[in-house]
Amino acid sequence: MSNHLSQKFEEIVGTGNVLASEVDRHNYAYDAAVLPPQLPALAVRPETPEALGRVVKTCNELGLPLTVRGSGTNLSGGTIPSEGGVVVLTGALNKIIEINEADMYAVVQTGVVTAKFAAEVAKRGLFYPPDPGSQAVSTMGGNVAENAGGLRGLKYGVTKDYVMGMSFYDVDGELVKTGSRTVKCVTGMNLHGLMVGSEGTLGVFNEIILKLVPPPKASKAMMAIFDDLGKASETVAAIIAAKIVPATLEYMDDFTIKTVEDFAHAGLPTDAKALLLIEVDGHPAQVEDEAAEVEAICKRIGATRIQVAKDAVERNKVWEARRAALSALARVRPTTVLEDATVPRSKIPAMVGALEKIAEKYKLTIGTFGHAGDGNLHPTILTDKRDHAEFTRVEAAIDEIFDVALSLGGTLSGEHGIGMAKSKYMVKEVGQGSIMYAKRLKAAMDPKNILNPGKITGA
Amino acid sequence: MSNHLSQKFEEIVGTGNVLASEVDRHNYAYDAAVLPPQLPALAVRPETPEALGRVVKTCNELGLPLTVRGSGTNLSGGTIPSEGGVVVLTGALNKIIEINEADMYAVVQTGVVTAKFAAEVAKRGLFYPPDPGSQAVSTMGGNVAENAGGLRGLKYGVTKDYVMGMSFYDVDGELVKTGSRTVKCVTGMNLHGLMVGSEGTLGVFNEIILKLVPPPKASKAMMAIFDDLGKASETVAAIIAAKIVPATLEYMDDFTIKTVEDFAHAGLPTDAKALLLIEVDGHPAQVEDEAAEVEAICKRIGATRIQVAKDAVERNKVWEARRAALSALARVRPTTVLEDATVPRSKIPAMVGALEKIAEKYKLTIGTFGHAGDGNLHPTILTDKRDHAEFTRVEAAIDEIFDVALSLGGTLSGEHGIGMAKSKYMVKEVGQGSIMYAKRLKAAMDPKNILNPGKITGA
Repeated sequence: MSNHLSQKFEEIVGTGNVLASEVDRHNYAYDAAVLPPQLPALAVRPETPEALGRVVKTCNELGLPLTVRGSGTNLSGGTIPSEGGVVVLTGALNKIIEINEADMYAVVQTGVVTAKFAAEVAKRGLFYPPDPGSQAVSTMGGNVAENAGGLRGLKYGVTKDYVMGMSFYDVDGELVKTGSRTVKCVTGMNLHGLMVGSEGTLGVFNEIILKLVPPPKASKAMMAIFDDLGKASETVAAIIAAKIVPATLEYMDDFTIKTVEDFAHAGLPTDAKALLLIEVDGHPAQVEDEAAEVEAICKRIGATRIQVAKDAVERNKVWEARRAALSALARVRPTTVLEDATVPRSKIPAMVGALEKIAEKYKLTIGTFGHAGDGNLHPTILTDKRDHAEFTRVEAAIDEIFDVALSLGGTLSGEHGIGMAKSKYMVKEVGQGSIMYAKRLKAAMDPKNILNPGKITGA
Repeated sequence: MSNHLSQKFEEIVGTGNVLASEVDRHNYAYDAAVLPPQLPALAVRPETPEALGRVVKTCNELGLPLTVRGSGTNLSGGTIPSEGGVVVLTGALNKIIEINEADMYAVVQTGVVTAKFAAEVAKRGLFYPPDPGSQAVSTMGGNVAENAGGLRGLKYGVTKDYVMGMSFYDVDGELVKTGSRTVKCVTGMNLHGLMVGSEGTLGVFNEIILKLVPPPKASKAMMAIFDDLGKASETVAAIIAAKIVPATLEYMDDFTIKTVEDFAHAGLPTDAKALLLIEVDGHPAQVEDEAAEVEAICKRIGATRIQVAKDAVERNKVWEARRAALSALARVRPTTVLEDATVPRSKIPAMVGALEKIAEKYKLTIGTFGHAGDGNLHPTILTDKRDHAEFTRVEAAIDEIFDVALSLGGTLSGEHGIGMAKSKYMVKEVGQGSIMYAKRLKAAMDPKNILNPGKITGA
């Protein structure tokens, strides 16, 4: 059976591009979420758009579940395949097709790595702002499928805000075009809007058209150090309330600071209770004004120290340390549960306070860091899922984190997606009407339920 | 029959809120598009969200086509009802539910008038940028349904970029919630993304959550005058190529200038061949720098005169004149056909050149103005649809305008929507795969095809 299946896909993608050994199947059975692996029948690696379309069509004909996988950095199980299904690898679909400087857009295949794309754009004097934590390995297709955020979301928005259009294969392998290379386009339904964040459940992306912007002329980065969690989180709310929109406004608590410093040796203040990493950018005069205002607010609310990065090297060292937060925390205990419940920005102090209480109540180690300026914190529970008693407490704590976020007017997921991990919680936030609408839509666009089944709306 | 129907809806919305007289029915039979009117059976005016939901449910039960109407300013026939259908008026659903200054968002009902909303937001020290030409009367629901653009699209984006979430009634009258009050949210499918620009075909909007931003600290407006269309359009491309993103970059040709000046008496230079209205905004120092750069570019390419607005009064006078362009042109001949084919910005000179040739070839009067910085021109054909020979030439000219836009990598509609006017052209741009996908989606979400039937994907 499996051999027959391999042959069928080899006819489409070529012999070397069907991966069906035991090792291969295990390699693609999981992603970065804390969820049990599920063994696919095989993985295929199409090298052309045509082959990709034929793979989709074939999966549908055979009723085989299909999960597209970029780099598998998904934190909500969005790239965990179905048992016995097909994993479609986008690694060979990695061409930057066009970077148009005059009209400030780019066209990419889905397997292009985010950071590589951003670097190519920068070489042409333009800027692609979304910078998810996993950008060094994550792919553009994955970013769009999950509507990835990042450190610059506050000022520059998230992936959604840069998708001008795309083409994708519907479940029958027909190519669907949506959107345009123009900044304004209302021709047809906003299907590219629907595709963003659809987690592979409604179509398989082919090419993506992305908006680019002029880069900021100047920037200034600083680290504000606090001896109190509350003061740090109040500072976040105060900066936003002053109508300053920094490019980056990141938060790290004491546990995260120590763990990251131990891992990255970036010179973080290990005696601090919390720190904020703040970057303002734009016109040089604006940067000076805003940096001064931000410093004044930090001081007023009680920062014990403010350290302005003296150059890009110093800035990058600290920012890379921040990017390493998850990796650093993940070393502490066998299991790392990274959440991304998000609240309106003014509710950050309330959320930080609640997280402290939850850690205490359930006797858990929670390191919290994240995009505080977006209200998007990443409470990270360090645990061991083999310890059933503790993991039961972890699950209770997660429930409570979601309840608090929702009670503060927030959302279950700011940027990691629903995937398999959170679909059971969705009804609490959006209600049954919304889930039924999405299920009806999914059933219509994918009658055999082969496109990444079980994600977002559940089974 | 009609009386029975009136009674049925009176039970839901109250006696005074069912409008079924001959005059009423004629009032709501058309919109701002040049298309034949279609007489609805009646119009209803729900005063509460609950009544709105019941109206939707009832229409579906009875298989009655339902068209939501804000102010009927639609330019593509999106608010022309079906013969014998129900028009749902949103005039009584006009509450601004919340303007949250700390978290920079607002929640509105759909009948809120755009300019009124923007003014309320401004009073709180915040900014809602989208400013479609019809903002003085257009409603927020209509803006979202059509993904309305405006004069500030270039820097600030269009309506789509401000919709954080919404609730809407599905065809069964069930309330669907999507998105959030947080700036980041990936909980569930991006149904609000799908709703933007859906022209009332997939659900009936209830409340809309809108992103707000801090207002720019300063701005500078100027008018650059040219004795040559080509030079004006080249200047547009050159400003963008210099990576300056003005808030506004509007174009007007000689015919439009004269007609507008005759109507609005704003002091426009009636001897000019073309003019650009340019506004830069942001930090005061940035504004000074960018204004100087823009002036230098205008001069380099050959502006004969540049007039900087000395104050807000002078600026507003000229901007209001620009906003009056359509009204002014509409006085010239009995029929005004306003197009909004859009091209990548660098192709503006090619598009302007093509429009000149098309006007000559088909012996038509075409006044062209629009959002040149977005590549979004509004070639406006002044004609008389009762003159069949001329109107045949108009239709041929429109075909050719669309062909040119598409051949330049552009789109049929930048901001006016597809409605009934352009659905037949869609296949040229997006192909059959895309239309079939949209039709399947529509059929699933609206099995009886009662939600604004015939729009976008046609009958």
